[in-house]
Amino acid sequence: MTRLMKMASFGATAGGGVNRQALSAEDFAAQAQLIAWGKSLGMSASHDLAGNLFLRLSGRDPRLEPVLTGSHLDSQPTGGKYDGVYGVIAALEAAQALVEAGIRPRRSIEVVAWMNEEGSRFAPGMMGSAVYAGARCLSDILPVRDEAGISVEEALGGLRAEFPDVAVRSTMDRPFCYVEAHIEQGPELEANNCSIGVVTGIQGKRTFRVSVQGEAAHAGTAPRRRRKDALLAATAMIQALDAFVQDDADLVKFTVGRLTVRPNAPSVVPESAAFSIDLRHPESGELARLGDAVGGICERHAGTCSVKVEELSSADSLQFPLAMRHAIRDAAAALRVAHMDIFSTAGHDARYLHGICPTGMVFVPSHLGITHNEAEYSAPEDLAAGARVLADLVAKLSA
Amino acid sequence: MTRLMKMASFGATAGGGVNRQALSAEDFAAQAQLIAWGKSLGMSASHDLAGNLFLRLSGRDPRLEPVLTGSHLDSQPTGGKYDGVYGVIAALEAAQALVEAGIRPRRSIEVVAWMNEEGSRFAPGMMGSAVYAGARCLSDILPVRDEAGISVEEALGGLRAEFPDVAVRSTMDRPFCYVEAHIEQGPELEANNCSIGVVTGIQGKRTFRVSVQGEAAHAGTAPRRRRKDALLAATAMIQALDAFVQDDADLVKFTVGRLTVRPNAPSVVPESAAFSIDLRHPESGELARLGDAVGGICERHAGTCSVKVEELSSADSLQFPLAMRHAIRDAAAALRVAHMDIFSTAGHDARYLHGICPTGMVFVPSHLGITHNEAEYSAPEDLAAGARVLADLVAKLSA
Repeated sequence: MTRLMKMASFGATAGGGVNRQALSAEDFAAQAQLIAWGKSLGMSASHDLAGNLFLRLSGRDPRLEPVLTGSHLDSQPTGGKYDGVYGVIAALEAAQALVEAGIRPRRSIEVVAWMNEEGSRFAPGMMGSAVYAGARCLSDILPVRDEAGISVEEALGGLRAEFPDVAVRSTMDRPFCYVEAHIEQGPELEANNCSIGVVTGIQGKRTFRVSVQGEAAHAGTAPRRRRKDALLAATAMIQALDAFVQDDADLVKFTVGRLTVRPNAPSVVPESAAFSIDLRHPESGELARLGDAVGGICERHAGTCSVKVEELSSADSLQFPLAMRHAIRDAAAALRVAHMDIFSTAGHDARYLHGICPTGMVFVPSHLGITHNEAEYSAPEDLAAGARVLADLVAKLSA
Repeated sequence: MTRLMKMASFGATAGGGVNRQALSAEDFAAQAQLIAWGKSLGMSASHDLAGNLFLRLSGRDPRLEPVLTGSHLDSQPTGGKYDGVYGVIAALEAAQALVEAGIRPRRSIEVVAWMNEEGSRFAPGMMGSAVYAGARCLSDILPVRDEAGISVEEALGGLRAEFPDVAVRSTMDRPFCYVEAHIEQGPELEANNCSIGVVTGIQGKRTFRVSVQGEAAHAGTAPRRRRKDALLAATAMIQALDAFVQDDADLVKFTVGRLTVRPNAPSVVPESAAFSIDLRHPESGELARLGDAVGGICERHAGTCSVKVEELSSADSLQFPLAMRHAIRDAAAALRVAHMDIFSTAGHDARYLHGICPTGMVFVPSHLGITHNEAEYSAPEDLAAGARVLADLVAKLSA
């Protein structure tokens, strides 16, 4: 808890939350703190070319593939104190538990903080883990720019300048396995009085960027029939998309989180409008059907404007291997911690690691399911339970 | 034309237009140029407490109320080269015509550049003329802030620092009359092959700010039924308002020009959204009916969110006095310039001057009616015709 509260000071907001964007000064300060803690445990720090940070606790046999565990340090602009950073601190505490117990594991243990999981500074998110796992090319993410026009490449240059003493690794060991602890970001564990969620899988997600082109005109003189009002067209698209995805079971997650208007002046008919779409569904088939309809719906509601729909990312729903799920369940049972199976409706870096090694996730409860919100809260006893399960798991996997 | 093109260089945009916000460095540069031109004609410069700029050509009897003529120098963010600045330059040219003809008018002539007509930096617009005419209090506009948090009071401090040699007048003479030349900003004059529009009146306008409060949540985990999605509610309101104001005659002007979303991140359900409404109609009764319905429609489409609707400004449709309209018509007829009566669907500073003195407006054609747009264009021969009519009119009114 002391470490979590220390981390929450890097990017602390007036509203009691955290704004720690990937590769920002606040992120660098959090990384520096993490590296200091890792070094005090005898761990060595390195970055890879995508800006992921690794702290390695050397095992007895350094030729063996390492056990990888961690999460991310970046947050949403009005994020909370636990999302991401909890999994990194829990991993560090797991390594510390081994060190303090005098256990020198056979396999090395690597604590990782993935670059830009949230995707709020550079879109889309999970950039670092995607490159690490080979799902995206490094050259693909380097030119991506934030709202201020700064590219990932430039921001990575800033990271290297900030940490001249941290080694940069251009080749990575394939991990033996990956385990990620994370807050649930939903209300199920709390409602079921369970401290631990054994994550069965992650729901699929597709993201889009919709750009509507209209024509600027005077709000007092331009007759409505001759207008090309980009915002009016965008609002019609958003309403039509929302109506289309309605389902009785309330499984579909449809979010337009970002909308920008130009020139955004009260008495000018909007010349252009651009908005994001975040679409998720636990069933890959249904996600495909819904996502494939986005382009057509936008076209049909463009009116006098033109529209361009780009798909930024697409990921099917996935199931984690049973062996990893059993290992987590066994650890929780051995520690007599109440646990249950749970499906993750949020995306995580574990999605990409799943593609290259046996992967599992440990959830701890989120109070009322509130997350991506400054009021995010998880109880200290649940956070501790998650760290203990993770420590037990890492000890077994690295033995 | 030389002067207009010089003015267009202050705030010139890459797209061939102008971005010259009220009390910005670009506005100050334009004012400095105008003052220099005025001084070369023997005119004296002053600002009033609201930041309006006056250039006075002294008449033979300085005790008489002056003839006031001008417009504004500020522009929309992607504005054109003619909106506003044309009326100021035409007024300067009218004064120059008198000076060069050796005419010393009986009444003084004051060329005015009103502060913040557009309202794109500080909302709502026509601030300077509203305060001058007593329709708004100075203390009312001073705390208004731009998007960067700078208040009108601070910006006016910048104006005074920029022009230490320009007198600041705290009391103003009531004008004898006011004439404003302006581009039409509609297609009628061009379609009717007229160089001059004798403006009969200005259509009414009401402006609102709608603030929608929701709750930030995770795009992947928050079930739709529990969400308070502020952007989804705002788009429903905008679509409902647009449907409500539809009229077969296409007389209603309804524009949502500005919409801002917080935190505006792709995977966060929007916590809040705020948008502007610009509503106009030539008939005051119909404008009242439509405007009065805005609050109820927003409430009915707020869903799980809360909404606050504030009316920022309200002005009925008005008719300029027949005497001023006849004087303009006579001047155009004497100069053998094709002219026609025209109703202004755009708002102008003349709206407020109408409240304190006989007021008239002279329109010149806008190519295709394109305005508040970088492609705004008026033909040099039409601009010259407007300046000649204005010079004739000012000579008669000041005689």
